[in-house]
Amino acid sequence: MRYHRIPDETIRRLPLYLRGLLFASEQGRESISSRHLADLVRVNPWQIRKDFSYFGDFGTRGVGYNAEKLARQIKKILKLDVVQKAVLVGVGNLGSAVLAYPGFSTYGLDIAAAFDTDPQKIGRKIKNIVVQDVADLRTLKKRKIKLAIIAVPRGAAQQTADTLVKAGVKGILNFSPCYIAAPKKVKVITIDIAMDLARLPYYMPAG
Amino acid sequence: MRYHRIPDETIRRLPLYLRGLLFASEQGRESISSRHLADLVRVNPWQIRKDFSYFGDFGTRGVGYNAEKLARQIKKILKLDVVQKAVLVGVGNLGSAVLAYPGFSTYGLDIAAAFDTDPQKIGRKIKNIVVQDVADLRTLKKRKIKLAIIAVPRGAAQQTADTLVKAGVKGILNFSPCYIAAPKKVKVITIDIAMDLARLPYYMPAG
Repeated sequence: MRYHRIPDETIRRLPLYLRGLLFASEQGRESISSRHLADLVRVNPWQIRKDFSYFGDFGTRGVGYNAEKLARQIKKILKLDVVQKAVLVGVGNLGSAVLAYPGFSTYGLDIAAAFDTDPQKIGRKIKNIVVQDVADLRTLKKRKIKLAIIAVPRGAAQQTADTLVKAGVKGILNFSPCYIAAPKKVKVITIDIAMDLARLPYYMPAG
Repeated sequence: MRYHRIPDETIRRLPLYLRGLLFASEQGRESISSRHLADLVRVNPWQIRKDFSYFGDFGTRGVGYNAEKLARQIKKILKLDVVQKAVLVGVGNLGSAVLAYPGFSTYGLDIAAAFDTDPQKIGRKIKNIVVQDVADLRTLKKRKIKLAIIAVPRGAAQQTADTLVKAGVKGILNFSPCYIAAPKKVKVITIDIAMDLARLPYYMPAG
Protein backbone atom coordinates (compact mmCIF):
# COMPACT_ATOMS: atom_id res chain seq x y z
CA MET A 1 0.00 0.00 0.00
CA ARG A 2 1.34 3.44 -0.94
CA TYR A 3 -0.03 6.42 0.93
CA HIS A 4 -0.12 9.52 -1.20
CA ARG A 5 0.63 13.13 -0.40
CA ILE A 6 2.93 12.36 2.54
CA PRO A 7 5.76 14.91 2.23
CA ASP A 8 9.30 13.55 1.81
CA GLU A 9 10.30 15.36 4.99
CA THR A 10 7.68 13.39 6.94
CA ILE A 11 8.88 10.14 5.38
CA ARG A 12 12.42 11.10 6.41
CA ARG A 13 11.32 11.37 10.05
CA LEU A 14 9.22 8.17 10.17
CA PRO A 15 12.20 5.80 10.71
CA LEU A 16 13.29 8.08 13.56
CA TYR A 17 9.85 7.81 15.17
CA LEU A 18 9.85 4.07 14.53
CA ARG A 19 13.14 3.67 16.35
CA GLY A 20 11.85 5.73 19.28
CA LEU A 21 8.60 3.75 19.46
CA LEU A 22 10.40 0.39 19.33
CA PHE A 23 12.70 1.61 22.09
CA ALA A 24 9.71 2.65 24.21
CA SER A 25 8.03 -0.73 23.58
CA GLU A 26 11.17 -2.56 24.65
CA GLN A 27 11.18 -0.51 27.84
CA GLY A 28 7.72 -1.87 28.56
CA ARG A 29 5.81 1.30 27.69
CA GLU A 30 2.38 0.65 26.22
CA SER A 31 1.44 4.22 25.47
CA ILE A 32 3.59 7.21 24.80
CA SER A 33 2.72 10.90 24.56
CA SER A 34 3.90 13.02 21.66
CA ARG A 35 5.91 15.00 24.24
CA HIS A 36 7.75 11.91 25.48
CA LEU A 37 8.34 10.67 21.95
CA ALA A 38 9.60 14.16 21.12
CA ASP A 39 12.15 13.93 23.93
CA LEU A 40 13.30 10.53 22.70
CA VAL A 41 13.76 11.51 19.07
CA ARG A 42 14.51 15.21 19.53
CA VAL A 43 11.79 16.54 17.24
CA ASN A 44 9.16 19.12 18.27
CA PRO A 45 5.93 17.56 19.60
CA TRP A 46 3.85 19.66 17.17
CA GLN A 47 5.93 18.34 14.29
CA ILE A 48 5.29 14.76 15.43
CA ARG A 49 1.55 15.35 15.69
CA LYS A 50 1.51 16.98 12.26
CA ASP A 51 3.50 14.12 10.72
CA PHE A 52 1.16 11.52 12.19
CA SER A 53 -1.88 13.46 10.98
CA TYR A 54 -0.93 12.60 7.37
CA PHE A 55 -1.88 8.99 7.85
CA GLY A 56 -4.67 9.17 10.40
CA ASP A 57 -4.87 9.91 14.08
CA PHE A 58 -3.49 7.23 16.35
CA GLY A 59 -3.44 9.11 19.61
CA THR A 60 -6.01 9.38 22.36
CA ARG A 61 -6.14 12.78 24.02
CA GLY A 62 -4.50 12.62 27.43
CA VAL A 63 -3.40 9.03 26.95
CA GLY A 64 -1.05 9.25 24.00
CA TYR A 65 -0.14 6.81 21.28
CA ASN A 66 -0.12 3.04 21.56
CA ALA A 67 3.59 2.53 20.94
CA GLU A 68 3.42 -0.97 19.51
CA LYS A 69 0.42 -0.32 17.27
CA LEU A 70 1.90 2.88 15.93
CA ALA A 71 5.27 1.18 15.28
CA ARG A 72 3.42 -1.50 13.30
CA GLN A 73 1.57 1.14 11.32
CA ILE A 74 4.75 3.06 10.47
CA LYS A 75 6.46 -0.17 9.40
CA LYS A 76 3.57 -0.84 7.06
CA ILE A 77 3.70 2.65 5.55
CA LEU A 78 7.46 2.38 5.05
CA LYS A 79 7.04 -1.16 3.66
CA LEU A 80 9.26 -2.42 6.45
CA ASP A 81 6.65 -4.94 7.63
CA VAL A 82 8.49 -7.48 5.49
CA VAL A 83 12.25 -8.08 5.54
CA GLN A 84 13.86 -5.88 2.89
CA LYS A 85 17.06 -7.27 1.46
CA ALA A 86 19.81 -4.97 0.26
CA VAL A 87 23.20 -5.39 -1.36
CA LEU A 88 26.38 -3.46 -0.83
CA VAL A 89 28.67 -2.54 -3.72
CA GLY A 90 32.21 -1.57 -2.70
CA VAL A 91 33.92 -3.26 0.22
CA GLY A 92 36.56 -0.64 1.03
CA ASN A 93 36.80 1.09 4.39
CA LEU A 94 33.32 2.57 4.19
CA GLY A 95 31.76 -0.61 2.80
CA SER A 96 33.38 -2.69 5.53
CA ALA A 97 31.98 -0.28 8.10
CA VAL A 98 28.53 -0.70 6.55
CA LEU A 99 28.82 -4.51 6.78
CA ALA A 100 29.79 -4.21 10.45
CA TYR A 101 26.99 -1.75 11.23
CA PRO A 102 24.66 -3.28 13.82
CA GLY A 103 21.61 -1.08 13.24
CA PHE A 104 19.91 -2.50 10.14
CA SER A 105 17.81 -5.19 11.80
CA THR A 106 15.89 -2.56 13.80
CA TYR A 107 14.13 -1.68 10.55
CA GLY A 108 13.86 -5.20 9.17
CA LEU A 109 16.71 -4.51 6.76
CA ASP A 110 19.08 -7.31 5.75
CA ILE A 111 22.38 -6.75 3.96
CA ALA A 112 22.23 -9.96 1.96
CA ALA A 113 25.25 -9.68 -0.34
CA ALA A 114 28.37 -7.63 -1.01
CA PHE A 115 30.24 -6.97 -4.24
CA ASP A 116 33.62 -5.61 -5.24
CA THR A 117 35.91 -5.53 -8.29
CA ASP A 118 39.11 -6.27 -6.37
CA PRO A 119 40.23 -9.91 -6.87
CA GLN A 120 41.91 -9.68 -3.45
CA LYS A 121 38.52 -9.10 -1.86
CA ILE A 122 36.32 -11.39 -3.96
CA GLY A 123 35.74 -14.66 -2.10
CA ARG A 124 36.66 -13.19 1.28
CA LYS A 125 34.14 -13.53 4.06
CA ILE A 126 33.20 -10.42 6.02
CA LYS A 127 30.58 -10.70 8.76
CA ASN A 128 29.20 -13.94 7.28
CA ILE A 129 28.95 -12.44 3.80
CA VAL A 130 31.17 -13.73 1.01
CA VAL A 131 32.26 -10.85 -1.24
CA GLN A 132 31.19 -11.51 -4.82
CA ASP A 133 32.43 -10.19 -8.15
CA VAL A 134 30.48 -7.15 -9.36
CA ALA A 135 29.96 -9.09 -12.58
CA ASP A 136 27.50 -11.17 -10.56
CA LEU A 137 25.25 -8.15 -9.93
CA ARG A 138 23.00 -9.34 -12.75
CA THR A 139 21.83 -12.15 -10.44
CA LEU A 140 19.96 -9.59 -8.32
CA LYS A 141 16.89 -9.72 -10.56
CA LYS A 142 16.52 -13.44 -9.95
CA ARG A 143 17.00 -12.90 -6.21
CA LYS A 144 14.42 -10.08 -6.25
CA ILE A 145 16.69 -7.69 -4.38
CA LYS A 146 15.66 -4.09 -4.97
CA LEU A 147 17.81 -2.11 -2.55
CA ALA A 148 21.48 -1.28 -2.90
CA ILE A 149 24.15 0.69 -1.07
CA ILE A 150 26.91 2.24 -3.18
CA ALA A 151 30.27 2.69 -1.43
CA VAL A 152 32.61 2.75 -4.42
CA PRO A 153 35.11 5.48 -5.39
CA ARG A 154 33.52 8.56 -6.94
CA GLY A 155 34.68 7.68 -10.43
CA ALA A 156 32.87 4.33 -10.41
CA ALA A 157 29.61 5.48 -8.81
CA GLN A 158 27.54 6.26 -11.91
CA GLN A 159 28.53 3.06 -13.70
CA THR A 160 27.68 1.05 -10.59
CA ALA A 161 24.30 2.75 -10.38
CA ASP A 162 23.59 1.99 -14.06
CA THR A 163 24.41 -1.68 -13.49
CA LEU A 164 22.20 -1.80 -10.42
CA VAL A 165 19.27 -0.19 -12.25
CA LYS A 166 19.65 -2.73 -15.06
CA ALA A 167 19.60 -5.48 -12.45
CA GLY A 168 16.21 -4.25 -11.23
CA VAL A 169 17.25 -2.17 -8.21
CA LYS A 170 14.67 0.48 -7.30
CA GLY A 171 16.28 2.18 -4.34
CA ILE A 172 19.91 3.31 -3.95
CA LEU A 173 21.69 4.69 -0.90
CA ASN A 174 24.74 6.46 -2.30
CA PHE A 175 27.80 7.23 -0.19
CA SER A 176 29.94 8.43 -3.09
CA PRO A 177 30.32 12.20 -2.96
CA CYS A 178 28.63 12.86 -6.30
CA TYR A 179 25.22 13.12 -7.89
CA ILE A 180 23.95 9.96 -9.49
CA ALA A 181 21.60 10.09 -12.46
CA ALA A 182 18.89 7.44 -12.43
CA PRO A 183 15.47 6.89 -14.03
CA LYS A 184 12.60 8.58 -12.21
CA LYS A 185 11.25 5.28 -10.91
CA VAL A 186 14.50 4.70 -9.02
CA LYS A 187 14.87 6.58 -5.74
CA VAL A 188 18.41 7.70 -4.94
CA ILE A 189 19.41 9.06 -1.53
CA THR A 190 22.93 10.50 -1.39
CA ILE A 191 24.65 10.76 1.97
CA ASP A 192 27.18 13.56 2.31
CA ILE A 193 28.85 13.34 5.70
CA ALA A 194 30.57 16.69 5.14
CA MET A 195 27.13 18.27 4.82
CA ASP A 196 26.13 16.94 8.23
CA LEU A 197 29.32 18.27 9.80
CA ALA A 198 28.67 21.61 8.07
CA ARG A 199 25.47 22.07 10.08
CA LEU A 200 27.24 22.06 13.43
CA PRO A 201 29.08 25.42 13.54
CA TYR A 202 25.75 27.28 13.28
CA TYR A 203 24.83 26.02 16.73
CA MET A 204 28.13 26.82 18.38
CA PRO A 205 28.54 29.88 20.57
CA ALA A 206 30.74 32.64 19.17
CA GLY A 207 34.38 32.99 20.20
CA MET B 1 26.31 36.40 14.07
CA ARG B 2 23.51 34.05 15.03
CA TYR B 3 20.19 34.40 13.20
CA HIS B 4 17.30 33.48 15.39
CA ARG B 5 14.12 31.58 14.68
CA ILE B 6 15.49 29.68 11.68
CA PRO B 7 14.01 26.17 11.96
CA ASP B 8 16.43 23.25 12.30
CA GLU B 9 14.98 21.77 9.13
CA THR B 10 15.97 24.90 7.21
CA ILE B 11 19.47 24.81 8.70
CA ARG B 12 19.65 21.17 7.61
CA ARG B 13 18.98 22.17 4.00
CA LEU B 14 21.31 25.18 3.87
CA PRO B 15 24.52 23.15 3.24
CA LEU B 16 22.66 21.41 0.41
CA TYR B 17 21.77 24.77 -1.16
CA LEU B 18 25.31 25.96 -0.57
CA ARG B 19 26.72 23.00 -2.47
CA GLY B 20 24.29 23.59 -5.34
CA LEU B 21 25.12 27.31 -5.50
CA LEU B 22 28.87 26.67 -5.44
CA PHE B 23 28.41 24.13 -8.22
CA ALA B 24 26.41 26.65 -10.28
CA SER B 25 29.07 29.31 -9.66
CA GLU B 26 31.80 26.94 -10.83
CA GLN B 27 29.80 26.32 -13.97
CA GLY B 28 29.96 30.04 -14.65
CA ARG B 29 26.36 30.82 -13.71
CA GLU B 30 25.90 34.26 -12.19
CA SER B 31 22.23 34.00 -11.38
CA ILE B 32 20.11 30.97 -10.67
CA SER B 33 16.34 30.60 -10.37
CA SER B 34 14.79 28.77 -7.45
CA ARG B 35 13.52 26.26 -10.03
CA HIS B 36 16.99 25.53 -11.35
CA LEU B 37 18.44 25.33 -7.85
CA ALA B 38 15.55 23.00 -6.99
CA ASP B 39 16.54 20.69 -9.86
CA LEU B 40 20.15 20.69 -8.69
CA VAL B 41 19.45 19.89 -5.07
CA ARG B 42 16.16 18.01 -5.48
CA VAL B 43 14.08 20.11 -3.12
CA ASN B 44 10.76 21.78 -4.05
CA PRO B 45 11.18 25.37 -5.34
CA TRP B 46 8.57 26.63 -2.87
CA GLN B 47 10.56 25.06 -0.04
CA ILE B 48 13.71 26.83 -1.21
CA ARG B 49 11.94 30.19 -1.42
CA LYS B 50 10.45 29.65 2.03
CA ASP B 51 13.83 28.68 3.52
CA PHE B 52 15.51 31.76 2.03
CA SER B 53 12.71 33.98 3.33
CA TYR B 54 13.91 33.33 6.90
CA PHE B 55 17.02 35.41 6.38
CA GLY B 56 15.88 38.00 3.89
CA ASP B 57 15.03 37.99 0.21
CA PHE B 58 17.98 37.58 -2.12
CA GLY B 59 16.13 36.94 -5.35
CA THR B 60 15.01 39.33 -8.06
CA ARG B 61 11.72 38.37 -9.65
CA GLY B 62 12.31 36.92 -13.09
CA VAL B 63 16.10 37.03 -12.68
CA GLY B 64 16.69 34.70 -9.78
CA TYR B 65 19.35 34.59 -7.12
CA ASN B 66 22.92 35.79 -7.45
CA ALA B 67 24.62 32.45 -6.91
CA GLU B 68 27.91 33.72 -5.54
CA LYS B 69 26.38 36.32 -3.24
CA LEU B 70 23.85 33.87 -1.87
CA ALA B 71 26.54 31.23 -1.30
CA ARG B 72 28.54 33.82 0.67
CA GLN B 73 25.48 34.70 2.73
CA ILE B 74 24.72 31.06 3.53
CA LYS B 75 28.34 30.49 4.53
CA LYS B 76 28.09 33.41 6.92
CA ILE B 77 24.86 32.13 8.47
CA LEU B 78 26.34 28.66 8.91
CA LYS B 79 29.58 30.17 10.26
CA LEU B 80 31.42 28.51 7.41
CA ASP B 81 32.94 31.81 6.24
CA VAL B 82 35.99 30.87 8.31
CA VAL B 83 37.75 27.51 8.18
CA GLN B 84 36.26 25.24 10.83
CA LYS B 85 38.64 22.64 12.19
CA ALA B 86 37.36 19.29 13.36
CA VAL B 87 38.90 16.20 14.91
CA LEU B 88 38.10 12.56 14.35
CA VAL B 89 38.02 10.06 17.20
CA GLY B 90 38.20 6.41 16.14
CA VAL B 91 40.30 5.37 13.16
CA GLY B 92 38.65 2.06 12.33
CA ASN B 93 37.02 1.32 8.98
CA LEU B 94 34.52 4.14 9.27
CA GLY B 95 37.05 6.61 10.65
CA SER B 96 39.48 5.79 7.86
CA ALA B 97 36.70 6.38 5.34
CA VAL B 98 36.02 9.75 6.98
CA LEU B 99 39.71 10.71 6.67
CA ALA B 100 39.65 9.75 2.99
CA TYR B 101 36.42 11.61 2.31
CA PRO B 102 37.06 14.35 -0.24
CA GLY B 103 33.99 16.49 0.41
CA PHE B 104 34.86 18.52 3.53
CA SER B 105 36.70 21.39 1.86
CA THR B 106 33.54 22.38 -0.06
CA TYR B 107 32.21 23.71 3.23
CA GLY B 108 35.48 25.09 4.55
CA LEU B 109 35.80 22.14 6.93
CA ASP B 110 39.23 20.80 7.84
CA ILE B 111 39.81 17.47 9.59
CA ALA B 112 42.85 18.62 11.55
CA ALA B 113 43.61 15.65 13.79
CA ALA B 114 42.68 12.02 14.42
CA PHE B 115 42.74 10.00 17.63
CA ASP B 116 42.55 6.34 18.59
CA THR B 117 43.27 4.11 21.60
CA ASP B 118 44.95 1.36 19.60
CA PRO B 119 48.77 1.46 20.04
CA GLN B 120 49.03 -0.15 16.58
CA LYS B 121 47.36 2.88 15.06
CA ILE B 122 48.86 5.67 17.16
CA GLY B 123 51.72 7.30 15.26
CA ARG B 124 50.55 5.99 11.90
CA LYS B 125 50.01 8.53 9.16
CA ILE B 126 46.72 8.44 7.26
CA LYS B 127 46.09 11.06 4.57
CA ASN B 128 48.75 13.38 6.03
CA ILE B 129 47.33 13.08 9.53
CA VAL B 130 49.31 11.36 12.25
CA VAL B 131 46.99 9.38 14.52
CA GLN B 132 47.34 10.55 18.13
CA ASP B 133 46.57 8.90 21.45
CA VAL B 134 43.07 9.77 22.74
CA ALA B 135 44.82 10.82 25.94
CA ASP B 136 45.95 13.87 23.95
CA LEU B 137 42.36 15.01 23.40
CA ARG B 138 42.80 17.50 26.24
CA THR B 139 45.03 19.55 23.93
CA LEU B 140 41.98 20.52 21.88
CA LYS B 141 41.15 23.43 24.15
CA LYS B 142 44.53 24.99 23.51
CA ARG B 143 44.11 24.42 19.77
CA LYS B 144 40.59 25.96 19.90
CA ILE B 145 39.04 23.06 18.03
CA LYS B 146 35.31 22.87 18.68
CA LEU B 147 34.08 20.23 16.25
CA ALA B 148 34.49 16.47 16.55
CA ILE B 149 33.46 13.34 14.71
CA ILE B 150 32.92 10.19 16.78
CA ALA B 151 33.55 6.91 14.97
CA VAL B 152 34.30 4.62 17.91
CA PRO B 153 32.55 1.38 18.89
CA ARG B 154 29.15 1.86 20.51
CA GLY B 155 30.44 1.01 23.97
CA ALA B 156 33.01 3.79 23.92
CA ALA B 157 30.84 6.53 22.41
CA GLN B 158 29.50 8.20 25.56
CA GLN B 159 32.88 8.27 27.27
CA THR B 160 34.45 9.75 24.15
CA ALA B 161 31.75 12.41 24.03
CA ASP B 162 32.31 13.26 27.72
CA THR B 163 36.05 13.68 27.08
CA LEU B 164 35.38 15.87 24.04
CA VAL B 165 32.96 18.08 25.96
CA LYS B 166 35.53 18.51 28.73
CA ALA B 167 38.07 19.49 26.07
CA GLY B 168 35.78 22.31 24.92
CA VAL B 169 34.09 20.70 21.92
CA LYS B 170 30.73 22.30 21.10
CA GLY B 171 29.58 20.25 18.14
CA ILE B 172 29.66 16.46 17.70
CA LEU B 173 28.87 14.38 14.64
CA ASN B 174 28.22 10.90 16.01
CA PHE B 175 28.43 7.78 13.84
CA SER B 176 28.04 5.34 16.73
CA PRO B 177 24.59 3.76 16.65
CA CYS B 178 23.48 5.12 20.01
CA TYR B 179 22.21 8.25 21.66
CA ILE B 180 24.79 10.44 23.26
CA ALA B 181 23.98 12.57 26.27
CA ALA B 182 25.61 15.99 26.27
CA PRO B 183 25.08 19.38 27.93
CA LYS B 184 22.49 21.56 26.19
CA LYS B 185 25.14 23.92 24.86
CA VAL B 186 26.73 21.08 22.90
CA LYS B 187 25.00 20.15 19.63
CA VAL B 188 25.06 16.45 18.78
CA ILE B 189 24.02 15.11 15.39
CA THR B 190 23.78 11.31 15.19
CA ILE B 191 24.02 9.65 11.80
CA ASP B 192 22.16 6.36 11.46
CA ILE B 193 22.83 4.90 8.02
CA ALA B 194 20.23 2.19 8.61
CA MET B 195 17.64 4.93 9.00
CA ASP B 196 18.50 6.34 5.60
CA LEU B 197 18.24 2.93 3.98
CA ALA B 198 14.90 2.44 5.77
CA ARG B 199 13.39 5.34 3.84
CA LEU B 200 13.91 3.74 0.44
CA PRO B 201 11.33 0.90 0.34
CA TYR B 202 8.50 3.45 0.68
CA TYR B 203 9.33 4.79 -2.76
CA MET B 204 9.61 1.44 -4.48
CA PRO B 205 6.81 0.09 -6.64
CA ALA B 206 4.92 -2.91 -5.23
CA GLY B 207 5.71 -6.47 -6.29
